[in-house]
Amino acid sequence: MSRSGAPALKRRTRLVTSERRAQLLALGLQMFASRSYDEVSMEELAAKAGISKGLVYHYFPTKRHFYVAALREAARQLVAETETDESAPPNERLEKALVAYLTFVERHARQYAALMRGGIGSDKQVAAVVEQTREAIVERVLAAPEIAPAATPMLRLAVRGWVGFVEATALEWIERHDIERDALVRMWMAVLFTATGFARA
Amino acid sequence: MSRSGAPALKRRTRLVTSERRAQLLALGLQMFASRSYDEVSMEELAAKAGISKGLVYHYFPTKRHFYVAALREAARQLVAETETDESAPPNERLEKALVAYLTFVERHARQYAALMRGGIGSDKQVAAVVEQTREAIVERVLAAPEIAPAATPMLRLAVRGWVGFVEATALEWIERHDIERDALVRMWMAVLFTATGFARA
Repeated sequence: MSRSGAPALKRRTRLVTSERRAQLLALGLQMFASRSYDEVSMEELAAKAGISKGLVYHYFPTKRHFYVAALREAARQLVAETETDESAPPNERLEKALVAYLTFVERHARQYAALMRGGIGSDKQVAAVVEQTREAIVERVLAAPEIAPAATPMLRLAVRGWVGFVEATALEWIERHDIERDALVRMWMAVLFTATGFARA
Repeated sequence: MSRSGAPALKRRTRLVTSERRAQLLALGLQMFASRSYDEVSMEELAAKAGISKGLVYHYFPTKRHFYVAALREAARQLVAETETDESAPPNERLEKALVAYLTFVERHARQYAALMRGGIGSDKQVAAVVEQTREAIVERVLAAPEIAPAATPMLRLAVRGWVGFVEATALEWIERHDIERDALVRMWMAVLFTATGFARA
């Protein structure tokens, strides 16, 4: 609460740079998860972190920079959380990964919807993070030998289309919640098997 | 070519308002089909239409207004061109509609890619046109009794997901063209049947 003086300054700077950055990004994920881009301010971020606005700007020169960094962190978490144990049976792995995806989408519903609807005013950096995340998912599916014994253009297209199916339905689902989670996950699996089966035929 | 004087003015205004507007929109569709938003200028539009820049601004106060109007016209054409004869067999109708969709996407490749990637800086009006067009397609599919005997939330979600599949693959396809058109259309059909079949089960 103290606005100046050595003790406050000490408290403010006791985190090392990487920890402070991680703390700010974690706060960003929380803030953007449930609120729009416009509703999040750097003042509030500074207050929540217990640091000065000036120090916040030292880490992120603009709110846009902060948003893109938080988005990258969210994408990294999504890819990590949908990672599954390679020794488990393929269908079980797929189901676990899809449940984890849906859980992640629910937790970040507002940001996910904004991203998928282009509502945050998509720029190239934002579009690149979204596209790289899709690509990571496509690559992971294509790496599963039971899904794609050889990554032909047709198989890649099938998996890319399936990601479009998953995104479109996840977006509708977080807005309406009018079907069971399990039913949605099972539909995702059925569509993936059909699309990749068709592509292999 | 004459910059002033009664004869030029007469030539300039000989189209009635609705015809002039239609002419400008048709030019807009051509221009945006193959070039980015930034590459299209109101000066060029005026030159192509053979009218003054002032008159262009009378119809469309800003380039953004012009873009949105051209987008609405493109969406209207897409919905019209994918309309099929109700008396034809269901699978034939679906296939014809999907071939027409793909033909349309090819013809408007640049604009389609920009829209789907959020690259034109999505605003609410643009997002609304895209969403209404998707909704028109979803409604049409749901109106086909052999696809959806009753439009349950699960069926609606399945069809909405399928539209996401179609968009994602169309976008990849116009960039790579690495599989046959027919194969893509058949994959779209297979995925629609699986998703809606799953939703009905």
